[in-house]
Amino acid sequence: MTGWLAIAGLGPGGDGLVTPEVRTALDAASDVVGYIPYVRRVAPRPGLVLHESDNRVEMDRARHALGMAAAGRRVVVVSSGDPGVFAMASAVFEAVEAGPAGWRDLDIRVLPGITAMLAAAARTGAPLGHDFCAINLSDNLKPWALVARRVALAAEGDFAMAFYNPRSRARPEGFGRVLDLLRGLCEPERVVIFARAVTTPDEAIRVVPLAEAREDMADMRTVVLVGSSATRIVAREGGPWVYTPRSVPA
Amino acid sequence: MTGWLAIAGLGPGGDGLVTPEVRTALDAASDVVGYIPYVRRVAPRPGLVLHESDNRVEMDRARHALGMAAAGRRVVVVSSGDPGVFAMASAVFEAVEAGPAGWRDLDIRVLPGITAMLAAAARTGAPLGHDFCAINLSDNLKPWALVARRVALAAEGDFAMAFYNPRSRARPEGFGRVLDLLRGLCEPERVVIFARAVTTPDEAIRVVPLAEAREDMADMRTVVLVGSSATRIVAREGGPWVYTPRSVPA
Repeated sequence: MTGWLAIAGLGPGGDGLVTPEVRTALDAASDVVGYIPYVRRVAPRPGLVLHESDNRVEMDRARHALGMAAAGRRVVVVSSGDPGVFAMASAVFEAVEAGPAGWRDLDIRVLPGITAMLAAAARTGAPLGHDFCAINLSDNLKPWALVARRVALAAEGDFAMAFYNPRSRARPEGFGRVLDLLRGLCEPERVVIFARAVTTPDEAIRVVPLAEAREDMADMRTVVLVGSSATRIVAREGGPWVYTPRSVPA
Repeated sequence: MTGWLAIAGLGPGGDGLVTPEVRTALDAASDVVGYIPYVRRVAPRPGLVLHESDNRVEMDRARHALGMAAAGRRVVVVSSGDPGVFAMASAVFEAVEAGPAGWRDLDIRVLPGITAMLAAAARTGAPLGHDFCAINLSDNLKPWALVARRVALAAEGDFAMAFYNPRSRARPEGFGRVLDLLRGLCEPERVVIFARAVTTPDEAIRVVPLAEAREDMADMRTVVLVGSSATRIVAREGGPWVYTPRSVPA
């Protein structure tokens, strides 16, 4: 039996956003590996072994999955969103690079998914319709100074921004510092979108000007979008549309 | 009959990347509107009217779609990739803002898709696995100075980068200027990925160091990814894996 490894994105939560390619891989798998809440999105069936692991053990999980594929299993590593955006794909290739030479010959595929920022953008209009940056605010994996530097340069370039992992129990204060930094660099009307648990039953969207944005508007399930200076609000019943125009006048 | 408008992303090309949500909208539509090659990806059927339009008429197309939805039709505007990333969603909301007040009450939904940079990243590993920027290199819609400024700031912040629309018949020289700019700011070994027509029969992927990147390696169907200074190459038979590590040491 020839093993393989698929690193698959389950999208933000809704079944309608899981690609057919990912469904096919899950249907063919012998093993599914991932962080507990993501593995629980996969329906159990006879012959499928579900391996749940805790957060922050990405490298152990990657090696486990690679070892099973090398032993002939058909393994799917599941991530929320897209596996290549602040998720498991980087961890798997880091493990490949550091691991046995034979792992480089494994059949490995990355199956993209709908990442949270694009699902959140879709819910509110087109806030990322022009140039934008995606920044992981977690300082577990990088120094705070680098987070701040990238946010400042993104603001200087007038990019729209998407912030992943704005706030967690382990580091609740970082996001407030980012908001303070932005308030020093952008006008008070700058559009900020808090998009929580998009496409799940817990979905909640909030659009506020930067002056009113507070760190407790985000939690671990929130992606935060910040418009560029050109981002527009189209008022209507039931919450505004937000879009960033495609063109910038000369 | 109540009309509606869905702005849908068809993904980069492969059928396995069209979300079930988008399929459902296409199955329920009376009209599909879009740029010729995207509308041709939708299978004709009795009762479905296909409206093909040329490139660069996005605002006309958006108004046409909104007008039909207001008249009770069930309209899908199709984009390649994700409709919110350098595609039709911004044009539609711009038309809503400038249009009759009644358009704000229409049932409009944006249905996200797999955008080219994430499909390209998946094919090569995880080059966008850490903070990154997406920049449209077309200067049809913004001044060249702004393109250059954003590329320079993204390099200064050591973001990975994804370039959309690197090169077209109308402005073949812009991408060469971006490569020259990057050569002045980044080391010669910086990883550059040319990903053409990903997930289609014409797919071609090329990974080169910045020193060897040439403007004629990109065409209108190419998305270009540039790694950060931390991006790694994992050599193997059949083309390397490329990934950007999740962590940056302090």
